[in-house]
Amino acid sequence: MIIHQIEELRKLIKSWKKEGLTIGLVPTMGALHNGHLSLIKKSVEKCDRTIVSVFVNPIQFCPGEDLEKYPRTLDADTKLCEDAGVSIVFAPSPKEMYGEGHIMSNDFLTYVIPPFFYVNKLCGKSRVGHFDGVCTVVNKLFNIVQPDFAFFGEKDRQQLIIIKKMVHDLNIPVEIIPCPIVREESGLALSSRNKYLSENGKKEALVLNRILFNIKTCYNKGIKDVEALTETAYSFLNANHTLEYLEFRDKNNLEEKKVADDNTIVFIALHVENVRLIDNIEL
Amino acid sequence: MIIHQIEELRKLIKSWKKEGLTIGLVPTMGALHNGHLSLIKKSVEKCDRTIVSVFVNPIQFCPGEDLEKYPRTLDADTKLCEDAGVSIVFAPSPKEMYGEGHIMSNDFLTYVIPPFFYVNKLCGKSRVGHFDGVCTVVNKLFNIVQPDFAFFGEKDRQQLIIIKKMVHDLNIPVEIIPCPIVREESGLALSSRNKYLSENGKKEALVLNRILFNIKTCYNKGIKDVEALTETAYSFLNANHTLEYLEFRDKNNLEEKKVADDNTIVFIALHVENVRLIDNIEL
Repeated sequence: MIIHQIEELRKLIKSWKKEGLTIGLVPTMGALHNGHLSLIKKSVEKCDRTIVSVFVNPIQFCPGEDLEKYPRTLDADTKLCEDAGVSIVFAPSPKEMYGEGHIMSNDFLTYVIPPFFYVNKLCGKSRVGHFDGVCTVVNKLFNIVQPDFAFFGEKDRQQLIIIKKMVHDLNIPVEIIPCPIVREESGLALSSRNKYLSENGKKEALVLNRILFNIKTCYNKGIKDVEALTETAYSFLNANHTLEYLEFRDKNNLEEKKVADDNTIVFIALHVENVRLIDNIEL
Repeated sequence: MIIHQIEELRKLIKSWKKEGLTIGLVPTMGALHNGHLSLIKKSVEKCDRTIVSVFVNPIQFCPGEDLEKYPRTLDADTKLCEDAGVSIVFAPSPKEMYGEGHIMSNDFLTYVIPPFFYVNKLCGKSRVGHFDGVCTVVNKLFNIVQPDFAFFGEKDRQQLIIIKKMVHDLNIPVEIIPCPIVREESGLALSSRNKYLSENGKKEALVLNRILFNIKTCYNKGIKDVEALTETAYSFLNANHTLEYLEFRDKNNLEEKKVADDNTIVFIALHVENVRLIDNIEL
């Protein structure tokens, strides 16, 4: 079943809470793929009721980003959710989420702002304000759905870490369940933005996971020095790749690592055919 | 009963929720007076269980403000609450609320930030960051207590409007109950900061409500022009008063009024003996 109105969803959730049912939330922007499906399956398995939100959140897109052309496939998404045992697809309009006039600036809207130390690096460096929009909408969804568990993919690892930090800092009564990256057989991490790539672009995009898995192999062989591990990456790059960042950071607080250890995550962002792709791996 | 730990409170609240009991929250910084007591009584009357939080919130004090010397009277506060039928006094430490190291800057802490249009005026103008701290701590308290109703005094009217805006914008499942200003027989609005005033200072402080009630009288007589209404105030002031602001604003969105109407609130802030006092009146 699909619900578009907040109040209608609230009523349903209230009745579930009264029955003592547990609720899982999988927040998405739609264009669902097998990555999302793995989160959905985990929620359906763990919770009595699963709600998948499908909302292309305007306030997490930065100027010049792909808000207008972001893929919207609500019918297919709903079908996929129903087949997977989801109770409700929650697909509100921007007006339903942000009110009449769509006044979405911080002049007129209350924002949830993650700590500067967590957003001034990696994706936050080029996507200024992105995580403010993410935290604000996720906070709203938590308040609307009041889930016991919420499921986030490790693909957007910085986002996952920031959401966990928000939940901790604001004492939000929800347990965040991280879900592993799902990859194509080729190794390419699934992403809704892969749709923008040509066949050749998809081949070029394999460089992300090649670099990461190579670093992990080197680390397992005993190389811990981050500078040395970083250097192993460059031989994989060619003129079709524009590297945005390759960084080694702590998996809890995003502090930079000079020497890699078992709490290290390697983050990469790289542009292929003007499509921004990200990936990461835990050492 | 007094509780200092978040987890202990959560357990109790969970059991109340299971029983279907309604919960009222009265957030305070302690130093309780009859103003607070009126909120508490309203909650006790309306809700099955009432929680009064007593927390001098460091992040809502600006540099140079009275964080250290702010009155702390927990024993008396607890007694007053018990006598009034409060179920729990929740009195966490700063460490319990903000964690080890008390790292409370926005470099390392998630903040809830009210809209700029609501904070760049009245008290927000001189107390930069104050309402960020208020919204963040109230958001935390809402997440910890998950109250059905929360009670705020109209004395801090800008705060009340900002909290209502936060609840709306972030879809927080709580109903805000505004409570009228309580005044001494003299007309002085009750405030924990009145304790800083000498006997003579308390007399001088009567100018706030004299100005406000005089404006209301003039308004009721048919004077609607804000400039004319403002001028009626100046005759009340003397060298012992430092006027910070006297403003006419919309009661919902704080827009400035040139012509007063029934949606207008008159806000005043004034310093007596270096104590900052505020008051307001609805026309």
